[in-house]
Amino acid sequence: MTNNSPIGIFDSGLGGLTVVRAIREALPREAVIYLGDTARVPYGNKSPALVLEYAQQITDFLLSSGAKMIVVACNTASALALEALRKTVEVPVIGVIEPGVETALKATLNHHIGVIGTIATVSSGSYETLLRKRNKTVKVISRPCPLFVPLVEEGWLEGDVTTAVIKHYLQPLNQAGVDTLILGCTHYPLLKPALQEQVNPGTVLVDSAEAVAAETARVLDKNGLRSDRSEKGTFNCFVTDLPARFETVAGRFLGTGLAGIETVHLP
Amino acid sequence: MTNNSPIGIFDSGLGGLTVVRAIREALPREAVIYLGDTARVPYGNKSPALVLEYAQQITDFLLSSGAKMIVVACNTASALALEALRKTVEVPVIGVIEPGVETALKATLNHHIGVIGTIATVSSGSYETLLRKRNKTVKVISRPCPLFVPLVEEGWLEGDVTTAVIKHYLQPLNQAGVDTLILGCTHYPLLKPALQEQVNPGTVLVDSAEAVAAETARVLDKNGLRSDRSEKGTFNCFVTDLPARFETVAGRFLGTGLAGIETVHLP
Repeated sequence: MTNNSPIGIFDSGLGGLTVVRAIREALPREAVIYLGDTARVPYGNKSPALVLEYAQQITDFLLSSGAKMIVVACNTASALALEALRKTVEVPVIGVIEPGVETALKATLNHHIGVIGTIATVSSGSYETLLRKRNKTVKVISRPCPLFVPLVEEGWLEGDVTTAVIKHYLQPLNQAGVDTLILGCTHYPLLKPALQEQVNPGTVLVDSAEAVAAETARVLDKNGLRSDRSEKGTFNCFVTDLPARFETVAGRFLGTGLAGIETVHLP
Repeated sequence: MTNNSPIGIFDSGLGGLTVVRAIREALPREAVIYLGDTARVPYGNKSPALVLEYAQQITDFLLSSGAKMIVVACNTASALALEALRKTVEVPVIGVIEPGVETALKATLNHHIGVIGTIATVSSGSYETLLRKRNKTVKVISRPCPLFVPLVEEGWLEGDVTTAVIKHYLQPLNQAGVDTLILGCTHYPLLKPALQEQVNPGTVLVDSAEAVAAETARVLDKNGLRSDRSEKGTFNCFVTDLPARFETVAGRFLGTGLAGIETVHLP
């Protein structure tokens, strides 16, 4: 492992490519290796023990590919596996929850923060726990939105159905008067325009991808791990299954085409 | 293996419990062993090769538990793995597609049949191929409905959102004038009342669970495999992961509570 080794990033599926995109924009000289666990997606309805087992297998794969740092670009895995990974892994490990929490605490004026995510992420209470740890006076209301991921994967980013689903899920958050809403799932940024229309006016939507990119830069600097190459870093993308419509969905998250995907088989 | 060995039934998740329910009602003296692959659900967005690999692992597990017959109670696995399983397994293997096709062909008057299912099931063309093989004059229109499974798992079996989603997916089928609609996914029977409201008047909805139970009885008789026990057969339920809300969702499919679930770890 050297300074020019890649940053290892993973997600349960392809949503983490929104994080890849933000990191490659902020840190263009860093090489990136990404694994999307498409064979076992979604993690949001799995048990904590199983999500931890999967996260450990993927981290082993990224480390064996030379990763100098691990970015858990999956809210469910960040909520359920981050602490355990940090105990067993020698390179720096960051998740998406802490950067999202920091950004939300800077944005809120009325100290009412909303969190939306998968059933597993919301049930874990990870966002609430960390928000309250950093600021004892903050009020937090969380809500699982299990239909948002299939809506995004179906490509229904707007329209009557999407609006009706969003209204249903956001109603209690709007009623509680949150002024900041954490999008606690890497799929949700694609719904940002539709979400912005349904939240109370002036509500800030926190998309953690950019916050994660900033945290990645900070951690690389702190550990003296910044790449010293002068050209653009490479990007290698691995998946555990290559299903139908893969490239359409991947392109939607990454904002550009994908070439040279490799399929790997995890235990 | 004896006549009193269990019937082995599997599905990617819990939807196959609708088939378990129909088989236990029709054949109360048969023992049943069920495996729901909850760790790897859903199959509908996975590649054909991966679905086949999973189906083989599960069939091995059911056979090693003494199953005298295998019922693939999953449309995606029936579409992608049935033929391969029949080549390698010595006990009878049935799926959900053939019984659904036979029932639909008996029901249709205008020979326009609609099929709805997951992306993988519809892409496989299995229903269309078999319908046309059995009746060359039948017209078939198929449509993937990827939001139906998450709607059912969320428990939204009726209401504005569900109605809007159903209208969207069924519109081309209604326009084509189908008089028979095959519910090509074990989750869909739970949407039957909401679907019945949105199809053209008089359209028959084919829920294959009952057809599968009848086919199971026929195959047992044909192979001399009927149980000769006088009491009610046992039911053993295995899952590959035990997620949150498991019992609520399982109860919804089975129509009764579940006791003594065991978790197994497949390779």
